[in-house]
Amino acid sequence: MLGVCYYPEHWPESLWAEDAREMVELGLRYVRIGEFAWSRLESAPGVFHFEWLDRAIDTLAQAGLSVIMCTPTATPPKWLIDLYPDILPVDIKTGTVRGFGSRRHYDFSSENYRREAMRISQVVAKRYGTHPAICGWQTDNEIACHDTAHSGSQNAKIAFQRWCKQFYGTIDKLNQAWGNVFWSMEYQSFEQIELPILAVTETSPSHQLAYRRFSSDQVVKFHDEMVDVIRAHAPNQFVTHNFIPMHDTQTDNFALAKKLDFVSYDNYPLGRTDLFFGDAPVAQFKKYMRTGHPDFSSYAFDQSRGISNSSFWVMEQQPGPVNWARHNPRPEKGMVRLWSWQAFAHGAEAVCYFRWRQVPFAQEQMHAGIKRNDNSRAAAYAEIAQVRDELKLIADLAEQPVQAKVAIVMTTENQWVTEIERQGDSFNQHKVEFGWYSALRQLGLAVDFVSPEHDLSPYQLIVAPCMPIVSQSFVDRCKASSALLVFGPRSGAKTSELTLVPNLGPGLLQQLIGVKVLSTETIRPDCYEELKLATKSGNSYQSTQWREELELSANTRVIASYHDKTPAVARDGRTLYVATLSCNSFLVDLFADLANELQLPILRLDESLRSVQRGNLHFVFNYSAKVQQVVAPQHADFLIGGSTIQPYDLAVLRLR
Amino acid sequence: MLGVCYYPEHWPESLWAEDAREMVELGLRYVRIGEFAWSRLESAPGVFHFEWLDRAIDTLAQAGLSVIMCTPTATPPKWLIDLYPDILPVDIKTGTVRGFGSRRHYDFSSENYRREAMRISQVVAKRYGTHPAICGWQTDNEIACHDTAHSGSQNAKIAFQRWCKQFYGTIDKLNQAWGNVFWSMEYQSFEQIELPILAVTETSPSHQLAYRRFSSDQVVKFHDEMVDVIRAHAPNQFVTHNFIPMHDTQTDNFALAKKLDFVSYDNYPLGRTDLFFGDAPVAQFKKYMRTGHPDFSSYAFDQSRGISNSSFWVMEQQPGPVNWARHNPRPEKGMVRLWSWQAFAHGAEAVCYFRWRQVPFAQEQMHAGIKRNDNSRAAAYAEIAQVRDELKLIADLAEQPVQAKVAIVMTTENQWVTEIERQGDSFNQHKVEFGWYSALRQLGLAVDFVSPEHDLSPYQLIVAPCMPIVSQSFVDRCKASSALLVFGPRSGAKTSELTLVPNLGPGLLQQLIGVKVLSTETIRPDCYEELKLATKSGNSYQSTQWREELELSANTRVIASYHDKTPAVARDGRTLYVATLSCNSFLVDLFADLANELQLPILRLDESLRSVQRGNLHFVFNYSAKVQQVVAPQHADFLIGGSTIQPYDLAVLRLR
Amino acid sequence: MLGVCYYPEHWPESLWAEDAREMVELGLRYVRIGEFAWSRLESAPGVFHFEWLDRAIDTLAQAGLSVIMCTPTATPPKWLIDLYPDILPVDIKTGTVRGFGSRRHYDFSSENYRREAMRISQVVAKRYGTHPAICGWQTDNEIACHDTAHSGSQNAKIAFQRWCKQFYGTIDKLNQAWGNVFWSMEYQSFEQIELPILAVTETSPSHQLAYRRFSSDQVVKFHDEMVDVIRAHAPNQFVTHNFIPMHDTQTDNFALAKKLDFVSYDNYPLGRTDLFFGDAPVAQFKKYMRTGHPDFSSYAFDQSRGISNSSFWVMEQQPGPVNWARHNPRPEKGMVRLWSWQAFAHGAEAVCYFRWRQVPFAQEQMHAGIKRNDNSRAAAYAEIAQVRDELKLIADLAEQPVQAKVAIVMTTENQWVTEIERQGDSFNQHKVEFGWYSALRQLGLAVDFVSPEHDLSPYQLIVAPCMPIVSQSFVDRCKASSALLVFGPRSGAKTSELTLVPNLGPGLLQQLIGVKVLSTETIRPDCYEELKLATKSGNSYQSTQWREELELSANTRVIASYHDKTPAVARDGRTLYVATLSCNSFLVDLFADLANELQLPILRLDESLRSVQRGNLHFVFNYSAKVQQVVAPQHADFLIGGSTIQPYDLAVLRLR
Repeated sequence: MLGVCYYPEHWPESLWAEDAREMVELGLRYVRIGEFAWSRLESAPGVFHFEWLDRAIDTLAQAGLSVIMCTPTATPPKWLIDLYPDILPVDIKTGTVRGFGSRRHYDFSSENYRREAMRISQVVAKRYGTHPAICGWQTDNEIACHDTAHSGSQNAKIAFQRWCKQFYGTIDKLNQAWGNVFWSMEYQSFEQIELPILAVTETSPSHQLAYRRFSSDQVVKFHDEMVDVIRAHAPNQFVTHNFIPMHDTQTDNFALAKKLDFVSYDNYPLGRTDLFFGDAPVAQFKKYMRTGHPDFSSYAFDQSRGISNSSFWVMEQQPGPVNWARHNPRPEKGMVRLWSWQAFAHGAEAVCYFRWRQVPFAQEQMHAGIKRNDNSRAAAYAEIAQVRDELKLIADLAEQPVQAKVAIVMTTENQWVTEIERQGDSFNQHKVEFGWYSALRQLGLAVDFVSPEHDLSPYQLIVAPCMPIVSQSFVDRCKASSALLVFGPRSGAKTSELTLVPNLGPGLLQQLIGVKVLSTETIRPDCYEELKLATKSGNSYQSTQWREELELSANTRVIASYHDKTPAVARDGRTLYVATLSCNSFLVDLFADLANELQLPILRLDESLRSVQRGNLHFVFNYSAKVQQVVAPQHADFLIGGSTIQPYDLAVLRLR
Repeated sequence: MLGVCYYPEHWPESLWAEDAREMVELGLRYVRIGEFAWSRLESAPGVFHFEWLDRAIDTLAQAGLSVIMCTPTATPPKWLIDLYPDILPVDIKTGTVRGFGSRRHYDFSSENYRREAMRISQVVAKRYGTHPAICGWQTDNEIACHDTAHSGSQNAKIAFQRWCKQFYGTIDKLNQAWGNVFWSMEYQSFEQIELPILAVTETSPSHQLAYRRFSSDQVVKFHDEMVDVIRAHAPNQFVTHNFIPMHDTQTDNFALAKKLDFVSYDNYPLGRTDLFFGDAPVAQFKKYMRTGHPDFSSYAFDQSRGISNSSFWVMEQQPGPVNWARHNPRPEKGMVRLWSWQAFAHGAEAVCYFRWRQVPFAQEQMHAGIKRNDNSRAAAYAEIAQVRDELKLIADLAEQPVQAKVAIVMTTENQWVTEIERQGDSFNQHKVEFGWYSALRQLGLAVDFVSPEHDLSPYQLIVAPCMPIVSQSFVDRCKASSALLVFGPRSGAKTSELTLVPNLGPGLLQQLIGVKVLSTETIRPDCYEELKLATKSGNSYQSTQWREELELSANTRVIASYHDKTPAVARDGRTLYVATLSCNSFLVDLFADLANELQLPILRLDESLRSVQRGNLHFVFNYSAKVQQVVAPQHADFLIGGSTIQPYDLAVLRLR
Repeated sequence: MLGVCYYPEHWPESLWAEDAREMVELGLRYVRIGEFAWSRLESAPGVFHFEWLDRAIDTLAQAGLSVIMCTPTATPPKWLIDLYPDILPVDIKTGTVRGFGSRRHYDFSSENYRREAMRISQVVAKRYGTHPAICGWQTDNEIACHDTAHSGSQNAKIAFQRWCKQFYGTIDKLNQAWGNVFWSMEYQSFEQIELPILAVTETSPSHQLAYRRFSSDQVVKFHDEMVDVIRAHAPNQFVTHNFIPMHDTQTDNFALAKKLDFVSYDNYPLGRTDLFFGDAPVAQFKKYMRTGHPDFSSYAFDQSRGISNSSFWVMEQQPGPVNWARHNPRPEKGMVRLWSWQAFAHGAEAVCYFRWRQVPFAQEQMHAGIKRNDNSRAAAYAEIAQVRDELKLIADLAEQPVQAKVAIVMTTENQWVTEIERQGDSFNQHKVEFGWYSALRQLGLAVDFVSPEHDLSPYQLIVAPCMPIVSQSFVDRCKASSALLVFGPRSGAKTSELTLVPNLGPGLLQQLIGVKVLSTETIRPDCYEELKLATKSGNSYQSTQWREELELSANTRVIASYHDKTPAVARDGRTLYVATLSCNSFLVDLFADLANELQLPILRLDESLRSVQRGNLHFVFNYSAKVQQVVAPQHADFLIGGSTIQPYDLAVLRLR
C-alpha cells in the first residue's frame, strides 16, 4: 500500500480537493497530516482552530483517502516558549540554550513541556480519536532528531539526580558502580551529581552511560505517555512513530517501539548516504551517489522490522533530491520505484512518500515532492504510478512473511559504549554493524535484527558485531540455541556499568568459547596490516583499526591470523570470536564459509545486484548503471521484469 | 597619483618632518591618518588632545602632502566601553560577547555607540572640515570587517524587531512572507521575533535573509549618518571609505557606497589569495603564491569601480608580506609595481600604500611597510619610485576612460541567498563569480561589475553568474538591451523573500528564455562528470557541484550537454542559461564563442599574461616567472616596456 | 632503580600484601601513592580518614618498599567545589566554566583553592613528613595538564591586573610596552585591563605574552608554596613533581623545577607519538607506531634532565597500550624494556611504571598496567623482570655521568612567542626544536637542554632552534664561550615584550654575526623550494614554511642558499644563522659538518638505530623490526647483548 505526507495548512484550500483526487488516482491510500501544525491549531493558550483541519480531513476522506493524524508536539509555538522558557533545551557541548526558530526545541526534562505536550495531544486525540476517516496516529515527529535526546539544562540535571536515586538507591552504590574513587569523583548525596558535560577533561564512562540511559528513559517516558493519551481517546486506531535511523536517536529503540502498533521509518537513502559514506574515496562514493549503497535502505528496513512489534511502514520515502545533506544528488531514474519495492521486499506494509508537493517556502523548499511547487509532476510521479500498477500483480504481498535464518544482535546501549569509550577515534559502531550486515547481504542472506532478549530459536547463524555489554540471560539463550554464533571485537568486555569484566574479555562469553583477550590496541585506519583466513590461505585480507590479542583454550582453534601469525579469529564449537575489524572481502568469505557449513543457500551476485526473498517471492535489484543478467531460481516465474535487468530496475519472481 | 597610510601617533614627533620629506621625494601626494587614534584624541569623556594631530598635519602639509583624515570610530577606547558595555557586539555563532582588546568591537545596533561615534566624528569634522591641508575624509575603517556586520545582542534583536515592523507592516504579512506556517514558526507580534541564530537546527531562509538585510541596513544607516556629519562640517572635502573585498562586508556595497564621492579599496593580493585559494592543490597554488592569481586584484578593482559613483582609489596597497593570512609569502620582486599599474589600468585614480613604516609593536608588527622598522627602505621603496617616474610618462592617464563592453551583474543579496541556502556545501558564490570573471579576463575582455539597477545599454555581453533573486525591472531592462545575456545556475529561482518562484526557475527570466528548471542536484566536487559544448564537440569539459535539469521550449536550443545527453546550457534568442558549474576551460570556450559572435576582439594570451585597455592605453602584465613575448596591437607605441616582458614586469602601449 | 604507581584505594585491602610482595619480587623499590585520594582522605570539611592510608603504607613498607607520597590537590572533591564554586576554571576559548567530573578542575587564581590546597597539603605533610617508609613527595599531579594553566575567570582577571601593576609599575609603562596606542587599546588604569581572550579579532601579542607570563607565574607560585608546605613538615624527604611534556605545561619549566630536588617525567611514547606525529603520512608513521619515534623518548629525557637540578626520574612509564590518544597501539614486544633502558642511558635515576594493575573502572580502564585487571601478568611484567636482572649487571650505573658537548637552548617564553605570533600557521616550535634535536641524535651526539641562563662552558656546539627573545646577558655568555653557535630562524627578532627589535633580526645577536633579516615570509608547507648546502653542492634539500631574507656583512659568508641563490644560512666566525626551516637531511648534513669541524665523534647509524654514552657506558637501541649489526667501539666490552641486535633490542657496552 502507498501513501503520502500532506500539509493542507501550506496550501490554499482551493487546491485540496484536486490534490486528494490526484492522490487517489496515483494509487495512494494513506495521507499523513498535522505533525507541525500547532500554531494553526492553537493560536494562543486555549484558543483553538480546528475548523480548517476538519475540512481538510473531510476533503481527503471524501476522495477515499485514509488519514494518519499526528500530535503536533515537535514544534511548540512561540507563545508557549514565551510562557515557559524552560521548554528550550541546552546544548551539551556549549551550555547555551537552543532557541526557537526551527523545530524540536524542547527539553524532555521540562515538566512544563511534558504537561503542555500531553495537553495538546489530548485535545487532538479527543477531537479525532473516533473520526471514521482517521485510521491511525503518528506520535510527534522523528523524535530525538537533531541531537535533542540530550539536554544540559538545570531541569535535566535535577531529573538525572532523581533518576540516579531511583536506579542506584544509595549514593554509595552509585559511587561503587561508577568507580568514583578514581580521581576523587565521589559524591556524598544525589543532589551533588552533575551532568557529565563541560568538564575539564573526559568524565567517567559509567557516569556518561548513566546519563545516556537516563536521557533515553526520558524520551521513552515522554513518548509512552503520549501513546497512552492517544489510546485513551482513539482506541481503535493504530499508533505508530516515524523513526530516524536507529543510530541517531540516542534512545533505546526497542523500548521506544514497545507501546506502538508498529514502527515507521523515514527513508532518505541519498541524504543518509552522503552523511554516512560522504568521506569515502571518489571511486567508492560516486557509483552509488544517486542510488545509495545497495545495502543502505534494506539495512534500515531490516532494523525497523526488528524493533517493530509486527510489520513496519515507510512513513517518508525520498521522492527526489533532498535539502539537508552536504550534497544532494537527484536519484537515478527508477530509484524511487526501486526503493519502494525494496521496502516491500524487506517486509514493509506501506510506503508513504514525503511529500505530496514541494513547498515553496521555509527550510525545506529545496526538498523535492511528488509534484513540483508549480503543481507539475516530478519524475517520481510516474515511478510511483508504476509501483501502483505493479502492486496489483501481487495481491498476496502482505501475506508473504520475511523468514530470515540469520540474525544480527543489536542494542543501543552498546552503541553508547563505543561512543563513550573511543579508544580508537576511527572506531564507528555504526559502520562496523553495517559492514557485517552488508557482507551477509552480499551473499543474498536475509537478515533479522534482534535484541538480546529476542527469541533466538528461528536462527541458524547469529552474529553480534559489537556487543561489549552482554547479559547472562543472553548467554543462556545462546547456549540453548543451536545456531552458529559469531561475536565481533569488544564483545563481552564490559559490565553493565561500563567497567571491565573481572575475567577479561569476552567476559561471560567465555562460557561459549575458550578465549581470553589479553590486550587491545587501536590502529590508525590507513596503517592496516595483513590478515589471513585459514580456509583461504591464498587470499590476503586486511586487519584494521581495532585489534585484540587472544589467548586460546585447548579446544579453541584458529580461524584467521594476524600478520604476526597470532590468532585473529577463533572458534570453539558453535562459537566464533572475531578479534579485529577487517576489510569487506574477509567478512564475505568468512560468512560464506559459515553459510556453506550450515547449508544456507547463498548467492554471489555482482556487487551491485541484491536479492532477497519474502515468502515465496524472490526479488532482485540492480543498483548499477549496467544491464545485468540474472539466473532465475528453478521453479520460479517472473511477476515483474525478466532475466535481463535494466539499470536501476528490478525483477520479482514467484517460487513455485 | 600615489599616497601612503601614516600613523604619526606611532612615532616620535622628531621623525615626522623627515618622514614627510621622504614621502614627497618618493612621489607620494596623499597621506591618510587618524583612523585608530581615538584614545589619543580623547583620553576621557570630553577630554580632547588635538594639538599633536594639528602639528602632524602641519608637518605633512608643509612638506607638500595632502591629508586624508579619518573618523576614529573603528576603535572605541576602553573608557567608552566601560561607560557603555552594550557597545560590544555578540557573536552570533556562540552567543558570547566579543570583548575589548582588538578593533571593531562595536555593535551597529548599539544606540549608545551610534551617538558616541557621531559625536566624535563631529568633533573631528568640525576641527578639520575646512583645514586647507585636508583634501578628504575616510569614514571609519574597513567597515564590517571581522564579521561585525552581524551581532546577536539584545540591542540587535530589538532593532531587528523594529526593522521587521517597518519592512512588513503587519505580523501576518511577515508570517506569510517567511512561510512561518512551516514548523509552527508563526509569530503573533513583532516583539516575539528572535534573531535567526542558535536554534536547534537551521532557521527559516527568509528569516535569515531578513536578518542579513537588517544587518546591512544597520551598517549603511550608521555609515550614512557619519557621512552626513562629515559633510556638514567639511563641505568641500571628498568623503570615501576603504572597502574590504565585497564578499566579506555582508553589506549591500552599492548602498554603502551611495553617499560617498568615490569608493576606496584595500588591496592585499597575497593575503587574500591565501584565504581564497589556500586549499587549492600545490600545482595550482604555488605558481601564484607570491603574485596572487592574475585576475584577483583586477577582480577587486573592477568591483570597486562598479560600486563607486565615479572612479576609485586603492587606499591600502600591500607593499610586502602581511601578517594575517594563514601563510604570508613575500611578493615577487616587481609585484608591488605591477599591482600598482594594474590598479591604474583598471581605472584607479590613486594608489596609497599601507603603510609608510613597519610598526614594531602590537598586532601588525609583522606587516611590511615601505620602510622597515629600522627606517631602512624595504624592497617596495624602489618599486614605488619606479611607478612615480613611469606615471610621469603618461600625463593623461586620469582622462583615459575604462570602457567595458562586458558586464557582470552582482548583488550582495544573492550572495546571502547562497550562503543561507547551501544545498551543496561546496557551492561558493564568490568562487563562481570569480570563475566567470577570470574566464572573461583570460580572453582579454574588459569587464564592468554592475548592479541590476545599472544602465545596461553600454554592454554587448551581460553575464549573471549567480542571481537567484531577479526583479521584473531588471528583466525589463534586459529586454530593452540588445546585449547577449548569460545566466548562471540558480538564476531567477527565488522570490525576493527567498522562497521558490511559482513558475519554477529561472522564474521571471522565462520571459527571456524558454527554459524551466525541473530539478536541481548538488554533487560532491570530486565526483564531476563530463560536459560537452556543441561547438567544440571534440573537447571534454567537466560539469561539477551544481546541476539543474532543464526543460526547453521549442525555440530554445542546446548549447552544451551533460554526460547523459540532457541539456546543460540552453539558448533562446539573445539569452543563454547555464544550468551547471563547470571547469574553467568550458567557460573560456563558451565566452570565446559569444565574443566572436559579437565581434568583440579577444586575445588568447598565455595563462599568466593579462591585457586590458583604458582609453587609448593598452596594458600587458606578466604574472609568470618566464620572459614572455607579446605581439603589440597594430598602430601602437610602447610607453613603458617593450614586446619582451620580463617576469613580473609589464608593458604599456598607446594606441594611435 | 625501578618503581611503580599504586592506588590502594582502588583495590580490596585483602590484595595489598600480595601486591607488595610481588612488586618486590619484580625488583620494584618505589611505590607512588595518594595523588588522587582526597575524597577518601577528607570526606567532608575537616573529616579525615587516614587509617586506611596508614595501613597501606605499613603494608608496603613491611614488604620492603619505599613510598612516594603525593598531595591530592589535582582532584578537589565535590563538597569542596560546592563550598567554593570559584575554584572551577573558565575556558579561555569559550568563556564557559569547566566543571567537576574529571580532574584538574581548579583555577590557579582562586584564592579559595590556593588556601584549601595548602591546607590539605599541610595535613598530609604533617602526618607523613617524618614517616620512615616515605622517601619523598610528589606535588599535585601533572600540573597544568589539560590546558589548565590558563583560566578566563574573574579571579584570573583581577589577579592579572595585580600582576600587571606589579610588573609594569605604571599604566603608562604598560601602554608603552604593549604598544597600546595601536588600535586605541590604551588603558587609563590597571583595573581596566581585560584578559586577552574572546575579543573581536586577535589581541595584542604583548598583551598575550604578559598573560602567559602571569599564568605561568600563578602556577609556579602555587606550586612553590606547596613545596614549602611539604618541606616544612618533611625536611628529610625529597620533593619532586611529575612533569608532562615541557611544551604542554604553558609554564616556565625551569622556574617550576627550581624548588624541587629533582624533576620527574611521565613517559608515554606511543600516546605522545600519536598526538605529535599523528598527521604524518603512513610511510613515516606506521614504522614507529608501536615504538614511538627513536628520538621521542630521549627528547623528553634530555629535556627533563635539563630542567632538573640534578638527575631525573621517570615517574610514570607506559607499560602497554594507553587510553587517551587518538589511536592506542600496543608496544612492540621489547619496547617497555627498551624505553626503560633508554631512560637510564639518558641519565634517569629511577623508572616507575604506571600502573601496577589495570583498573577496571572509570576513565583509565583501557590503560594497561603491569598486571591485567584479572591479576594476570601483562606482557610488560617479563620485560621489567629482565630490566631488574640486567640492572644488577651494571652496579655503578648511578655514578656514570651524562656528558654532552652539544646543547640546545630552550625557553618556554619563546614557545609562547611562536604560539602567539603565528605568521605561518604551519610553524610549530615544538616540531622545529624536535627536528634539530633529532638531527643531532641521528649523528649519535649527546645533547643537553639548557636555559639561556645556564653555564655554557661545557659545550662545543650550542644550538638555538627558535629563540626570538634573546637577552644581552645570554649574548655576553655566548661571546665568552668558545663553542660554535647555531641560531634558527626568528632568533633575536623580538624584544622581551614581543615587539620588533629596533635593529632588525637577529637583534642583539648581530653582536655575534653580521647579518640582518630584511624580510620574512611564510610558505604553505607543501610548497617547499630547493635549498643548497655549499659543502654538499650535489645534494638538493628543501627550504620550507619559514624563510627570511638576509643581508650579510663583509665578514659573513654563505653556508647555504635558497632556490633563488640568495643566502639561507650564513656564518660569521663561530656563529651560524639559519634563516629557514628545512628537511631533516639538511640539518643532519649541516650538523655533521660542524661536528667534524669540532672533531666531535659522530656515528652515522641506520635511521632506526640510536646510540648514546653515559660515562663509560655505551648504549645502542634498535627501534626497527630488522636484526641489525653494530660495530662496537674499540676497547669496549658488551655488558648486555652483543654486536647483533634483535628487533626492539639493545646493547650496552663498557668502554675500557
